Amino acid sequence: MKRIAVYPGTFDPVTKGHEALVLKALPLFDEIIIAIGHNSKKQTYFPIEKRKAWLETIFSNYPQVKIDTFDGLTVNYCKEKNARFILRGLRNPTDFEYEGNIAQANSTLNPEIETVFLISNPGLSIVSSSIVREIHRHGGDISQFIPSGIIIE
Amino acid sequence: MKRIAVYPGTFDPVTKGHEALVLKALPLFDEIIIAIGHNSKKQTYFPIEKRKAWLETIFSNYPQVKIDTFDGLTVNYCKEKNARFILRGLRNPTDFEYEGNIAQANSTLNPEIETVFLISNPGLSIVSSSIVREIHRHGGDISQFIPSGIIIE
Amino acid sequence: MKRIAVYPGTFDPVTKGHEALVLKALPLFDEIIIAIGHNSKKQTYFPIEKRKAWLETIFSNYPQVKIDTFDGLTVNYCKEKNARFILRGLRNPTDFEYEGNIAQANSTLNPEIETVFLISNPGLSIVSSSIVREIHRHGGDISQFIPSGIIIE
Amino acid sequence: MKRIAVYPGTFDPVTKGHEALVLKALPLFDEIIIAIGHNSKKQTYFPIEKRKAWLETIFSNYPQVKIDTFDGLTVNYCKEKNARFILRGLRNPTDFEYEGNIAQANSTLNPEIETVFLISNPGLSIVSSSIVREIHRHGGDISQFIPSGIIIE
Amino acid sequence: MKRIAVYPGTFDPVTKGHEALVLKALPLFDEIIIAIGHNSKKQTYFPIEKRKAWLETIFSNYPQVKIDTFDGLTVNYCKEKNARFILRGLRNPTDFEYEGNIAQANSTLNPEIETVFLISNPGLSIVSSSIVREIHRHGGDISQFIPSGIIIE
Amino acid sequence: MKRIAVYPGTFDPVTKGHEALVLKALPLFDEIIIAIGHNSKKQTYFPIEKRKAWLETIFSNYPQVKIDTFDGLTVNYCKEKNARFILRGLRNPTDFEYEGNIAQANSTLNPEIETVFLISNPGLSIVSSSIVREIHRHGGDISQFIPSGIIIE
Repeated sequence: MKRIAVYPGTFDPVTKGHEALVLKALPLFDEIIIAIGHNSKKQTYFPIEKRKAWLETIFSNYPQVKIDTFDGLTVNYCKEKNARFILRGLRNPTDFEYEGNIAQANSTLNPEIETVFLISNPGLSIVSSSIVREIHRHGGDISQFIPSGIIIE
Repeated sequence: MKRIAVYPGTFDPVTKGHEALVLKALPLFDEIIIAIGHNSKKQTYFPIEKRKAWLETIFSNYPQVKIDTFDGLTVNYCKEKNARFILRGLRNPTDFEYEGNIAQANSTLNPEIETVFLISNPGLSIVSSSIVREIHRHGGDISQFIPSGIIIE
Repeated sequence: MKRIAVYPGTFDPVTKGHEALVLKALPLFDEIIIAIGHNSKKQTYFPIEKRKAWLETIFSNYPQVKIDTFDGLTVNYCKEKNARFILRGLRNPTDFEYEGNIAQANSTLNPEIETVFLISNPGLSIVSSSIVREIHRHGGDISQFIPSGIIIE
Repeated sequence: MKRIAVYPGTFDPVTKGHEALVLKALPLFDEIIIAIGHNSKKQTYFPIEKRKAWLETIFSNYPQVKIDTFDGLTVNYCKEKNARFILRGLRNPTDFEYEGNIAQANSTLNPEIETVFLISNPGLSIVSSSIVREIHRHGGDISQFIPSGIIIE
Repeated sequence: MKRIAVYPGTFDPVTKGHEALVLKALPLFDEIIIAIGHNSKKQTYFPIEKRKAWLETIFSNYPQVKIDTFDGLTVNYCKEKNARFILRGLRNPTDFEYEGNIAQANSTLNPEIETVFLISNPGLSIVSSSIVREIHRHGGDISQFIPSGIIIE
Repeated sequence: MKRIAVYPGTFDPVTKGHEALVLKALPLFDEIIIAIGHNSKKQTYFPIEKRKAWLETIFSNYPQVKIDTFDGLTVNYCKEKNARFILRGLRNPTDFEYEGNIAQANSTLNPEIETVFLISNPGLSIVSSSIVREIHRHGGDISQFIPSGIIIE
């Protein structure tokens, strides 16, 4: 049976940390679906079309990686895609608490879906989308924090 | 390529938490090697023969699960076994800090080996070997904390 | 002197964790007042009437437990009710930091009021109102997370 | 029914933090038993006789407070003393993780015993016995960290 | 070369904790610029004119301390002021995670600027502006939490 | 008045993290004394002569940096050296709790001495002496974790 993982997130914007996580997870899964959670009520910084396009550019050479958008519960989306695994990165202990609670809630909603955590590379552990947004908002240079293949203006 | 994971630990003694973790990891790997770290200088509470025997009993019906002992660096043992993954459980934020540092050190020693974390089941998050030892040492009943298939006297 | 505790919160909605906490605290106090903090400016997910009715249903067989609403400072409400204790649950270290600061601020405002903490049952530690709301918002089944005596549609 | 709490610890030595915790807990219980855990195999810094005598001096004017020693499991000692509550202080998040696990293990061993946590006073949150020992070992002045009624030489 | 530090913050309102931090940092720097971050889009509780005036009153006898406002990136403001240091206080582990990430991001944006952390005095560790605002909003007495030289109505 | 800092530690062995911390602190102080805590009762992994020699080699080109050994309380050693500052690095939240308590105890023992914290560089946050010792003990290659100018066999 094919091992499929869903990597859900907002990717607002995608960071070097997200990119590294997917590359680290490649040997573990047969297919990784990067799934941009879409919630028409929540305002995001960058439009979903741009976020999707950036991810498609970054992983264009990896047929094993798909880019998609979804709304609703992550576990329902996983079921629809026959994905038994949710992929998430951990950068620090606070991440762990939040992510752990979400993972356990998902596991209660659907016990057949397991969340798999990889740890961020040390040098990338500071790169969070919210810090990148904050720098961008103030006109700072975010190029050091985002994947080298894309341009965010 | 076969996906082989090493699950290193002391298992002094094995707990329900360890058992649940391996069962949750089964769909993710083709083979899981439970590897009891053996250090002749460090004193353990239960002898290594017993710890190995308990694990063999618990997983006797799972041909996918092997039990072994090792000494030396975990990454060297992984290489010897052609294992590209280290499996570890996370129960709480302090676990995360410790495990995260070990994972990053291992990744520096051998960048081809990735540590994969699963989160403990909520009801089992309290079960640590050190608490079980403490209860046992004081003559308390540890049966609620260890896998049902084994007897620890 | 009667030992009265105020258990303040938003209960938006009440969870199995809240229910278990009150039941655990019953032997400790002569009276527990579950006090729904009411702030006309803050938007909640469920209306206060519903939140109050759910709590009344759950604890209808416990004359020792009262349900009330309040606005203003918790310590002032406690004084008005002759309550010397504030009851709060702790699920994880992040809870502790936040709750600890609030407890110390309350203790500075009124040194005669003590905050008493009980720890969540391990199996319930994931149940937070915010996760329950998130699942409900996406149309998921929240029945496993809320007390069995009530129905939240 | 009398509300009896056991406050277990090593008190090696007793600190201002321990003293403040008992005083804060007085309104909550009819009796508080400060129980010095005694383990003939574990080496302590101060002999148990001294530790017991210091506690007896500090609380000599509080008939509600008893001083005792015990070995074995805390929950067994509680049962023997008809104590339904274990009292513990929390200073910081790391305390919480450790104490929380112990509390949940105790609650598994005897579901009728509840651990009650009070938070340390902000100004006393640094005072740990291990830091006091370290200062004493190096010949520093520990008088600011220990209750005013006793002398530790 | 003059050692100049920027102490950036919102100071909404200034607390005893902020005041103590600057006084503790005085021996370390030749000049400390308290810089109120100004963001016309973010709503604050107190107007910037009041926040600036309070700080000016508190430090009126310290010529080494300047009060200023700024918008944009902190590292850019530092460069403009020839400040090589950012001063920040740490109250607890959660502070540390947040502050640490910001410090590392700033250090990536400008490697010549170093963030220097001092730890809050134990008795002041609870004093956060957000708790002070919450008490003020409910009509509570905040005088114990703010510097003695100013009046906040 | 000269700004002198003591950087106390065991340095068993010195790591790239220690080296980076001192280099980052250079602009802040007129003199930094790296002080190896010496306790004849505590067993270390490497002898103190080697630890001192490694530090002397690493900082031989920095006249502003002195290497020394000391026993007794850190605050007493600081006073003897006319140092008003203690320098420490922070890698993660657990570091913070431990270091914060020590800093507050030192500040109680001598209110004129302030502890100054710098944060570890992200890529170096995993490098702890205890992990380096563990790798060395098992015959692993530690060269990636220690300063480039020294050889540890």
